[in-house]
Amino acid sequence: MKRLLVAARANAEAFATCFRAELPEHEIVTALPSDGGAVAYAVVGRPEPGLLASIPGLELVLSLNAGVEHLLASGEVPPGVPIVRMVDPGLVEGMVEWVSAHVLAWHRNLFAYRDKQVERRWAPAAEKLARERTVTVLGAGALGGPVATMLASFGFRTRAWSRSPRTLPGIECFAGEGGLAEAAAGADILVNLLPSTAQTLNVVDAALLAQLAPGALLVNGGRGATMVDADVLTALDSGQLSAAALDVFRTEPLPADDPYWAREDVLVSPHVAAPTHVSTSVAVMAESVRAWERGETPANVVDPALGY
Amino acid sequence: MKRLLVAARANAEAFATCFRAELPEHEIVTALPSDGGAVAYAVVGRPEPGLLASIPGLELVLSLNAGVEHLLASGEVPPGVPIVRMVDPGLVEGMVEWVSAHVLAWHRNLFAYRDKQVERRWAPAAEKLARERTVTVLGAGALGGPVATMLASFGFRTRAWSRSPRTLPGIECFAGEGGLAEAAAGADILVNLLPSTAQTLNVVDAALLAQLAPGALLVNGGRGATMVDADVLTALDSGQLSAAALDVFRTEPLPADDPYWAREDVLVSPHVAAPTHVSTSVAVMAESVRAWERGETPANVVDPALGY
Repeated sequence: MKRLLVAARANAEAFATCFRAELPEHEIVTALPSDGGAVAYAVVGRPEPGLLASIPGLELVLSLNAGVEHLLASGEVPPGVPIVRMVDPGLVEGMVEWVSAHVLAWHRNLFAYRDKQVERRWAPAAEKLARERTVTVLGAGALGGPVATMLASFGFRTRAWSRSPRTLPGIECFAGEGGLAEAAAGADILVNLLPSTAQTLNVVDAALLAQLAPGALLVNGGRGATMVDADVLTALDSGQLSAAALDVFRTEPLPADDPYWAREDVLVSPHVAAPTHVSTSVAVMAESVRAWERGETPANVVDPALGY
Repeated sequence: MKRLLVAARANAEAFATCFRAELPEHEIVTALPSDGGAVAYAVVGRPEPGLLASIPGLELVLSLNAGVEHLLASGEVPPGVPIVRMVDPGLVEGMVEWVSAHVLAWHRNLFAYRDKQVERRWAPAAEKLARERTVTVLGAGALGGPVATMLASFGFRTRAWSRSPRTLPGIECFAGEGGLAEAAAGADILVNLLPSTAQTLNVVDAALLAQLAPGALLVNGGRGATMVDADVLTALDSGQLSAAALDVFRTEPLPADDPYWAREDVLVSPHVAAPTHVSTSVAVMAESVRAWERGETPANVVDPALGY
């Protein structure tokens, strides 16, 4: 009977209850046992410093998040212990919903109408159809693929960019450093879903933003470190960006003195685009454990060299 | 060479230019010719009183709008002259976009986060997945069908209600007066896309709103007369509705003293959900003319008894 430690900072008991139902043969604990015995599996979001390095017999780390840059940077995951990043259907669905909500709300002027409502004026704006606008999605994998596919289903001319070449039906795909500017050229909407890795640091910078159509929308549901904040602010000031919907930041929580908070052209949300849902994520993590115990490599094991 | 009169109040020249390209054998005019000769086809939105009754030789009325209640009520369409209501792909796409924008913006708390942003507080709300919410769409035809299908693709538990029984893949369908309360029972979101007819007058009333889950969202992209305004305001005041997104009203433009304007829980937009797009709609109307001249009944001819 192997042990599984739930070290989630929130909902630890809810996760443990679900794990007990999914893995009845395992001992599920929410704190390191005092007997010093082995704990094969650790379920972690952003674990307390020192926790991972102190677990005896650790075999597998199950991340509650899609992004694992902090786990890799901590240096606390013992060499050879795989990290499985979270790719659960609830997380993907949440991201598809959140990105679509922001893209459509901007596209159909929802915030502009709401702001004008106080004036009690009946003033229709020129409305474009989705088919008259181009969206570029950075990332074409577990998150970017479904997001691009959903946006294309509304009629948006949809492009996706990824590190290595991908093919998505109905989506114009671009790849590699050389394809980035072309992917963004003339786009009305840029959706950033990149993970935080050495390669994606500062990808959304002044040069990339200058490729977009004037007055474009930036949506960031990926990671804050992939975006140069000063360049985003400059692009907003110049009108190159008309708005930005930002859910992730270099420092989270976003400090109270950050300039993003005060801007009416920036929509700040507190990292809620794609929360990990207890029931759907436990089913995925339990399957990783079962695959591991069958001697297989679980799906979505992180490649430390790539960072995801 | 038959004549076609474009009597659109806006973009008449743009419509005429497109018609000349689509129907090069026809004479396209934007005013009644002074020669008193026959005008076989009239393209109208909300025509000036007296115009339709004064057209000699009128064979077919091509409505620029999906809703034709004002044409029927005017009594100016000569008996036996068919009215073709507008069902163009641009109009359908626009409605799918607009309803999805409002449903998703409410579902993912976009307005709530924006309102809280001024406080500079990082305060994640509990986020639900679409699959945890139920949407009921009133109308399951040319507009309701595609809207329900798109919402279902996000995972919403989706129902549709129509006058006569319909079947839509993946949608729970209800029909007739007897099925209305059941269709709405416990729904978190009610989307009204009903046309304005004798049968749909005041369908969205206190009794129907009481069927919804407490704190539901009402989205009205259909017609204002299908909704009892006093009942909507009461439901908002009681919390039975948490918000309403309203694009259509009994009186348009919405009068400056209307209580909807001042409410933060109501999003007023000026009848922009599904504007008729010149290029896509002219292609559809030209096809109606060609069908008529082949001796066929064009698609989407209005049944005056039903009102659509």
